[in-house]
Amino acid sequence: VSDAIGLPLITRATVTPILISDPPLLNTQGVHQPFTPRLVVEVETEAGITGVGETYGDADYVTIAERLARSIVGQPLACLNGLLALAAQNATGAVDDDPTRLDVGGLRGVRNPDKLTASVVSAFEVAALDALGRSVGLPVHALLGGKVRDRVEYSGYLFYRWAEHPIDGAPTDEWSAAVDPDGVVAQARRFAEQYGFTSFKLKGGAFPPDEEIAAIKALHAAFPDHPLRLDPNGAWSVQTSIKVANELADVVEYLEDPTLGIEGMAQVHRETGVPLATNMCVTTFAEIPPAFAANAVQVVLSDHHFWGGLIATRELAALCRTFGVGLSMHSNTHLGVSLAAMTHVACTVPELQYACDTHRPWQTEDVITVPHVFKDGCVDVSDAPGLGVEIDHDNLANLHERWQASDVRDRDDVAAMRVARPDWVQPSMPRW
Amino acid sequence: VSDAIGLPLITRATVTPILISDPPLLNTQGVHQPFTPRLVVEVETEAGITGVGETYGDADYVTIAERLARSIVGQPLACLNGLLALAAQNATGAVDDDPTRLDVGGLRGVRNPDKLTASVVSAFEVAALDALGRSVGLPVHALLGGKVRDRVEYSGYLFYRWAEHPIDGAPTDEWSAAVDPDGVVAQARRFAEQYGFTSFKLKGGAFPPDEEIAAIKALHAAFPDHPLRLDPNGAWSVQTSIKVANELADVVEYLEDPTLGIEGMAQVHRETGVPLATNMCVTTFAEIPPAFAANAVQVVLSDHHFWGGLIATRELAALCRTFGVGLSMHSNTHLGVSLAAMTHVACTVPELQYACDTHRPWQTEDVITVPHVFKDGCVDVSDAPGLGVEIDHDNLANLHERWQASDVRDRDDVAAMRVARPDWVQPSMPRW
Repeated sequence: VSDAIGLPLITRATVTPILISDPPLLNTQGVHQPFTPRLVVEVETEAGITGVGETYGDADYVTIAERLARSIVGQPLACLNGLLALAAQNATGAVDDDPTRLDVGGLRGVRNPDKLTASVVSAFEVAALDALGRSVGLPVHALLGGKVRDRVEYSGYLFYRWAEHPIDGAPTDEWSAAVDPDGVVAQARRFAEQYGFTSFKLKGGAFPPDEEIAAIKALHAAFPDHPLRLDPNGAWSVQTSIKVANELADVVEYLEDPTLGIEGMAQVHRETGVPLATNMCVTTFAEIPPAFAANAVQVVLSDHHFWGGLIATRELAALCRTFGVGLSMHSNTHLGVSLAAMTHVACTVPELQYACDTHRPWQTEDVITVPHVFKDGCVDVSDAPGLGVEIDHDNLANLHERWQASDVRDRDDVAAMRVARPDWVQPSMPRW
Repeated sequence: VSDAIGLPLITRATVTPILISDPPLLNTQGVHQPFTPRLVVEVETEAGITGVGETYGDADYVTIAERLARSIVGQPLACLNGLLALAAQNATGAVDDDPTRLDVGGLRGVRNPDKLTASVVSAFEVAALDALGRSVGLPVHALLGGKVRDRVEYSGYLFYRWAEHPIDGAPTDEWSAAVDPDGVVAQARRFAEQYGFTSFKLKGGAFPPDEEIAAIKALHAAFPDHPLRLDPNGAWSVQTSIKVANELADVVEYLEDPTLGIEGMAQVHRETGVPLATNMCVTTFAEIPPAFAANAVQVVLSDHHFWGGLIATRELAALCRTFGVGLSMHSNTHLGVSLAAMTHVACTVPELQYACDTHRPWQTEDVITVPHVFKDGCVDVSDAPGLGVEIDHDNLANLHERWQASDVRDRDDVAAMRVARPDWVQPSMPRW
């Protein structure tokens, strides 16, 4: 069974929701749960060619993915331009259609059927690209027009955190608590030593702004040549954002989502001149025209899951280039399949000049046989066919069994915080 | 000699300027010359894999192409994302840098080094895609994410024209003169019979607007179900454009470039509601932000040569989709290599719902062994590796010899008109 090109058709797609261990990383909504859902998508052909992708694994994503897994059967491997339409046909009615809803308390920006569909499509698109590349001997980057660099730089992603989850039997790691400037600097030192990162991002919004300003200043004193970023996930009012921006104007490379909404972001930039990055204010193509018109964001943090895949990420790059808006890359908790995809697309975009974000160093588990290595803060681009990763099916099965045995189906940082602080409710924004 | 992927490197690129015969088609600048320059680019690898591209062949394009032909040697076939930078390095100082200059009296929009560079890059990009596809057995459309349709619809491109050039020994064809509504309708009938076109575009700006309005109305009477377009190449004032738009509001699918400039186009659309298409007002990425902000254009006529290739055309499509602007496709005098490239990219863009323009039916010569066939107004998408065309090197050599023997180096419709009308000078715009 092959298509007009002579390539094998997709004969099966497998959707495997998993739970992966996650450290107690703090943000303005609460704290990461001990286990967080993630989704692995595998496509198969009769010829034995397979491909793999990864995306968010919350329940609604799984629902849409299971539908797409059925409808993608019979498609050619080079079906990438039709995937969104194919998924949209099947997503109708799959999920809540409230257009004002935010995802994970806003951490992922808007939550609507189109966005969820794009996030699911991203995993299938990457899996199809992987399989297409394997079938003809091309790395994914060559299917995207070719790499313009041989390695992709990532930023050290610092978090306020606890030493361990306040739950018996929760997974542990070898990191200490970091709840003040000294803790943050110590974490950065270890990140720099272990991985060679030459820029840092601090997830903020967890402590009052003055404490986070102090942490950034301490980082700047310790690493005067490292570009720094602070991301409170929209926890600040416009006035607070302006105050922080003015305090840190000479220290930060950019501020990420200091406040919520196009109008507020535009005002903060207008009054401070500090570049603002976003992975909340603009996470869909529909948000681009009003946000760019208002000059609300100066850097878009692409997330190939949000945007619908690697080709869509390159389209976002073209939009940013055309409008003189910078491009960097967002990360949420992810494993090596997503890191491979991020690295492939990042190496093809000439104007991606910022170090990309990645949570990967925080993850102690993976589903690939040979996890990536960060050297000098960079990941080497693979020239092997497809993504250049192989799934460890024993690991994948174990993580899926964990998902089956658990009742965790959605990421919920508010609920996780409530374990430690029973009075915790979802913070109303702006917190400060 | 191969790259990290194991594919052969580019070892040679050949730039072959040619002159192709062209009928006496009229436009607002004058008339097509008997022979018009075009450029064929071939890339070669040591492994014997080759690829071909085609673009504008005026002298400045040839100059930039010859530089890029040297600097592309040693590049991998999957070098597409780096081509523009490679060409830009070598284009500096190659051509006149007057930012206000227009190309061919404005028929191609602005003329600046970036635009010329992109137009040259397009041929090398297509040639590299062709060779990359041939080397791994993928059609170009699969390298662009896959086709979403099996055939691409083209529009019948009607021209006011003379029966023959007013020059002894000029090439002839089997078409009659068309200088009034009856002639235009007769031409359309023959186009519909011969090629099955189900939509028509009339190149206007050659006669006073009332005569062209009459021609469009005659076409509408003869083909009531055919979408119609009229393109005077900016020959009308804003007031004339508004008058024509109101006269033809219920008849045309869109008007093309009725008047020059963002402000005028925006006003015409604002006051008439008629969709305006362009391949003059917006022909570069730099022109998009102001034009889209002003709602000056409702349809961009992509031309993969102007925009820098097939990947860039897909980026343009993403920009249009994001801003709710339609996408159609422009054509200038071209041969089968460009038609293959146009067809490959068009079949990958879901939102390309308009029939594309093509001059191809007017060309009696070609450089490919098996010229395309229009059936029901459509060209079938090739699933053969690469573009799916083979160069006829005898034909190519003959057309290059014609170029060598001639002193025609640039397209010049004004000069061609002066042969028939010695008092003809470049019309100042608006003509009406």
